[in-house]
Amino acid sequence: MCTAITFATKDHYFGRNLDLDFSYNETVTITPRNFKFPMRKVDDLSSHYAMIGMATVVEDYPLYYDAINEAGLGMAGLNFPDNAHYFADIDGKNNIASFEMIPYILGQAKTVDEAKKLLENVSVSAEVFSADFPTATLHWIIADKEKSIVVESTKEGLNVYDNPVGVMTNNPPFPIQMYDLNDYYAISAHPLEHKFGNGVSLHEYSRGMAGLGLPGDLSSKSRFVRAVFTKYNSMCDDDELSSINQFFKILGSVEQVKGLCEVTPGKYEYTIYSSCMNQDKGIFYYTTYGNSDIHAIDMHKVDLDGGKLSIYKLNKKLSVSYDN
Amino acid sequence: MCTAITFATKDHYFGRNLDLDFSYNETVTITPRNFKFPMRKVDDLSSHYAMIGMATVVEDYPLYYDAINEAGLGMAGLNFPDNAHYFADIDGKNNIASFEMIPYILGQAKTVDEAKKLLENVSVSAEVFSADFPTATLHWIIADKEKSIVVESTKEGLNVYDNPVGVMTNNPPFPIQMYDLNDYYAISAHPLEHKFGNGVSLHEYSRGMAGLGLPGDLSSKSRFVRAVFTKYNSMCDDDELSSINQFFKILGSVEQVKGLCEVTPGKYEYTIYSSCMNQDKGIFYYTTYGNSDIHAIDMHKVDLDGGKLSIYKLNKKLSVSYDN
Amino acid sequence: MCTAITFATKDHYFGRNLDLDFSYNETVTITPRNFKFPMRKVDDLSSHYAMIGMATVVEDYPLYYDAINEAGLGMAGLNFPDNAHYFADIDGKNNIASFEMIPYILGQAKTVDEAKKLLENVSVSAEVFSADFPTATLHWIIADKEKSIVVESTKEGLNVYDNPVGVMTNNPPFPIQMYDLNDYYAISAHPLEHKFGNGVSLHEYSRGMAGLGLPGDLSSKSRFVRAVFTKYNSMCDDDELSSINQFFKILGSVEQVKGLCEVTPGKYEYTIYSSCMNQDKGIFYYTTYGNSDIHAIDMHKVDLDGGKLSIYKLNKKLSVSYDN
Amino acid sequence: MCTAITFATKDHYFGRNLDLDFSYNETVTITPRNFKFPMRKVDDLSSHYAMIGMATVVEDYPLYYDAINEAGLGMAGLNFPDNAHYFADIDGKNNIASFEMIPYILGQAKTVDEAKKLLENVSVSAEVFSADFPTATLHWIIADKEKSIVVESTKEGLNVYDNPVGVMTNNPPFPIQMYDLNDYYAISAHPLEHKFGNGVSLHEYSRGMAGLGLPGDLSSKSRFVRAVFTKYNSMCDDDELSSINQFFKILGSVEQVKGLCEVTPGKYEYTIYSSCMNQDKGIFYYTTYGNSDIHAIDMHKVDLDGGKLSIYKLNKKLSVSYDN
Repeated sequence: MCTAITFATKDHYFGRNLDLDFSYNETVTITPRNFKFPMRKVDDLSSHYAMIGMATVVEDYPLYYDAINEAGLGMAGLNFPDNAHYFADIDGKNNIASFEMIPYILGQAKTVDEAKKLLENVSVSAEVFSADFPTATLHWIIADKEKSIVVESTKEGLNVYDNPVGVMTNNPPFPIQMYDLNDYYAISAHPLEHKFGNGVSLHEYSRGMAGLGLPGDLSSKSRFVRAVFTKYNSMCDDDELSSINQFFKILGSVEQVKGLCEVTPGKYEYTIYSSCMNQDKGIFYYTTYGNSDIHAIDMHKVDLDGGKLSIYKLNKKLSVSYDN
Repeated sequence: MCTAITFATKDHYFGRNLDLDFSYNETVTITPRNFKFPMRKVDDLSSHYAMIGMATVVEDYPLYYDAINEAGLGMAGLNFPDNAHYFADIDGKNNIASFEMIPYILGQAKTVDEAKKLLENVSVSAEVFSADFPTATLHWIIADKEKSIVVESTKEGLNVYDNPVGVMTNNPPFPIQMYDLNDYYAISAHPLEHKFGNGVSLHEYSRGMAGLGLPGDLSSKSRFVRAVFTKYNSMCDDDELSSINQFFKILGSVEQVKGLCEVTPGKYEYTIYSSCMNQDKGIFYYTTYGNSDIHAIDMHKVDLDGGKLSIYKLNKKLSVSYDN
Repeated sequence: MCTAITFATKDHYFGRNLDLDFSYNETVTITPRNFKFPMRKVDDLSSHYAMIGMATVVEDYPLYYDAINEAGLGMAGLNFPDNAHYFADIDGKNNIASFEMIPYILGQAKTVDEAKKLLENVSVSAEVFSADFPTATLHWIIADKEKSIVVESTKEGLNVYDNPVGVMTNNPPFPIQMYDLNDYYAISAHPLEHKFGNGVSLHEYSRGMAGLGLPGDLSSKSRFVRAVFTKYNSMCDDDELSSINQFFKILGSVEQVKGLCEVTPGKYEYTIYSSCMNQDKGIFYYTTYGNSDIHAIDMHKVDLDGGKLSIYKLNKKLSVSYDN
Repeated sequence: MCTAITFATKDHYFGRNLDLDFSYNETVTITPRNFKFPMRKVDDLSSHYAMIGMATVVEDYPLYYDAINEAGLGMAGLNFPDNAHYFADIDGKNNIASFEMIPYILGQAKTVDEAKKLLENVSVSAEVFSADFPTATLHWIIADKEKSIVVESTKEGLNVYDNPVGVMTNNPPFPIQMYDLNDYYAISAHPLEHKFGNGVSLHEYSRGMAGLGLPGDLSSKSRFVRAVFTKYNSMCDDDELSSINQFFKILGSVEQVKGLCEVTPGKYEYTIYSSCMNQDKGIFYYTTYGNSDIHAIDMHKVDLDGGKLSIYKLNKKLSVSYDN
């Protein structure tokens, strides 16, 4: 399904794998400050923070999957099947359609705390974008340079959870993911003492055996555990190239290889793209399944005061550099 | 399939679970010193060490499953399907049929070292006991009060391995079992430090979480690991009752509950009996699946100089003591 | 910590393992209908359903661990550390101290539905029994012959959950236990098809390999999974002896062997007793760690209209039956 | 440590991850047919098949890590600590130093069968290349377009095993790796039936849950299982770009991220480079830890009849393509 992470070296990074069995013609899309976001049940956002992210643009409307705004706040929607529940309009609430959530938050909040404030009065509504774009069952991760939250609209209502690990995948609901993480407390990247039994002589016949028990499959809980483990043990230099390289390595540890996750007979889910956004500099990096070269789009290279979307098609073709 | 263990407190104990989907009318059987063991290809054993153990007696011949002799040497045959290989008679070797192995060794050896000596010239032959009792594919554990060995006749020939943990189950071959035990080196009965990652805060929400990773199923490798772990962390007083109680607890950790291991459609393997032999005192204790009461037969209560088998039927019926 | 299960053949059974590192001198105790249960904040129970169960009796007050009443309703309190939260008295609620919960429910309810009704107005209070008996952090399983519920008092208030599997251990909270059970959906007691990969040839080298992945440690989630798996695949005849024998086998699959679960340096938790109550007949069966013989107390053998407790000391000494 | 794989679509591919905590200045090196390979104990190879591979070149001698020859035969040496054993010179054997093994085989054999023939008379000797390059403890995988073998020199002598899965990592010895692979027979890339228990209702809350049980750590057995699973379930188009992209994805599933495998305090092993050789076309592709761009060197672009090495330094610097 999907994995989102935050990561910090000298700068701060936010991004995700999109894992699906099909693609909606996503593009990197910059929305400048004066692009008018029509809103179904609240006032339109005529003027707002500029944002850059991955979006399917339909009728000049950017349906964002993940994005950051110019203040460095990031937000991504990930699949949350069975558990996501959206509501009929509630009086006295700001009823925001699920597809409006990213523009609504990134357009108005500079920080997680401001996002939390906005969310206090939000109800996620079941309103569809159009007949061609049925409602996706999502939950969201929001992150600034310091902290991260998870937003889940379930039958019980809208839940906002602090996310101490800065990682989100899909099911189960976030509090269960965090509780279950405890099951892996004894796993380590560092050689461990042998404590199996008094008088049994065992030895580590391979480097890395302290990690035994780390799950390697593609289910959402296993990806969550693996991404947290990889992120929190990861080591890299703090310059930009080392940082984004390591960011893609962490996402690589939960990449879905084609053929490994059958969805319906003969259809397979895989990692369509991986994104990495520098929250400090407003740069969007990405790779695609078929092309591991890193491409970048810098939001500050366009006029952020404009009113028109800037749209960049993805480079999906692998290039090989011949050295002879 | 089956699990055999050795265990020591003040005295020394040897025994096993027999896990099968049927039973051959086993009995506790004492073979005195002058019972004549006919041998197919070597000299008959007319005079030998007395022994006590679980056996199916057919035409006055005790087909032993597990036994100890009066010198305290214990031996048990356990299933070793696919890997066991018996040979046609080999000139210059003592060709011992698989069903003769226990009397051949226990009749003549007082210690593991003496057993090893005997085995140097043994070839296990494929000779059957009778048409009604086809050859079982077995390997053997032999243990005195100090050490233990595993005897495996495979296509490569007769292999005798030191058994540093005093536990044996079934497949894979013993060297693989021992190698794979290393995979569990980080599991513990004692609370562990949390080393998952720098900055992730996890906690042990339950006692016993240091044991996470210990396999709980009934396959032979999982039973091997679980029995070794249980044996080497087990604690008990060293008197006879505490010791045999703990011995049956260790075997209980790998007991096969009826219904949990389907062999062929509708047929299930389970722990038919558990045995515990005091190697110092010559007492055979047992429980059966249907009767957890501990029964005992003392080999020294019969005339060990005799020539006739003493046979004790198993008490398979559960008894309940009403306290009011 | 502890495991409770329900089980049905022809009759219905309810019971548990008590796993602790110490013992409070428990006894099987019958409370007849007219024994006066003093209650701290609600009316005393002067007349109520009779009950039988394991209790520590202090100053003529039975502190029940697990019990059934004469109508066949069963209830057990199990450790729920960190997650249990008891409240200061709340106006308009029936404030029941945690140690009063079993008499309060079993004294007044014949069925789970009646218990649910009572619980609607209950708040569990932090009131202690006495300075010597500090408040235990508990949650409860309640079961009649048809269904089962779990009662958890947490910071959020009193939660009553349907328990579709009739098993309860300790942490995590019950909804997480049930969610996580899904992780084991592919484990089986029946041989499975090999689907690892197209063109890789693997084989089941041992019976029981379809169970690989079943956890074997003593943590509360692992015991939950193992007990559910064992219960739902268990097979036995439906007479009384077969049923209680199988009941103790299921509890045996999660028994804590001494030495395997260190609590504080040098102190170990183990299964102090196992209970099995016939809900139809009012018989309490038990075994203790040191004595696997099954003892029984029948509540209908005492005058249930009386006002005095009947107390039966546990038989903790192993007996061995010599067959020669 | 390391992982090597074979892979076939329309063409045939062979390659590996090199996982170490340091690097010896590796280069892609083409050895033409008339480069003279001095041999310590057998005749020098003055004329031989040309080869291309990753090598550290010392004093004009290519110490190959992995390579293919012009006939398409590939060979790689991987770490085999504790288990590798090299011998003193044996009369009547071709005593080949471990560092000479790749040139000796690739220089003379076109196929695995020819390699097997050569190996029949080989003893791997402990001779060192030089004081600065101590002997590495290796085993080897050899693969042509059809099949693959593993070559392990242990205390028992030189073992040559058929490798039916075309994957090799490090410890344990290959027969144990293959045996243990059976433990994963129930894992799948395809949704599975729920068979946990009769009457327990479980559901797959995430795609990919059929893969639960697949190990995710970096130990050599876990990488072996994961690489086999990924390879045998992998799906891709059969053109060159799709094939090499998928090849690097499979290697990516066992990539060692920096920081996740501590070797000695403060020193970490990681995937220094990944190679993918087209055995049909003689092209060597690689990526490095710091640079995910794919670089290529084609052996047929140099004069293969020459006598001098062609050496290509690795491109280790990440490049980012700005799209705006």
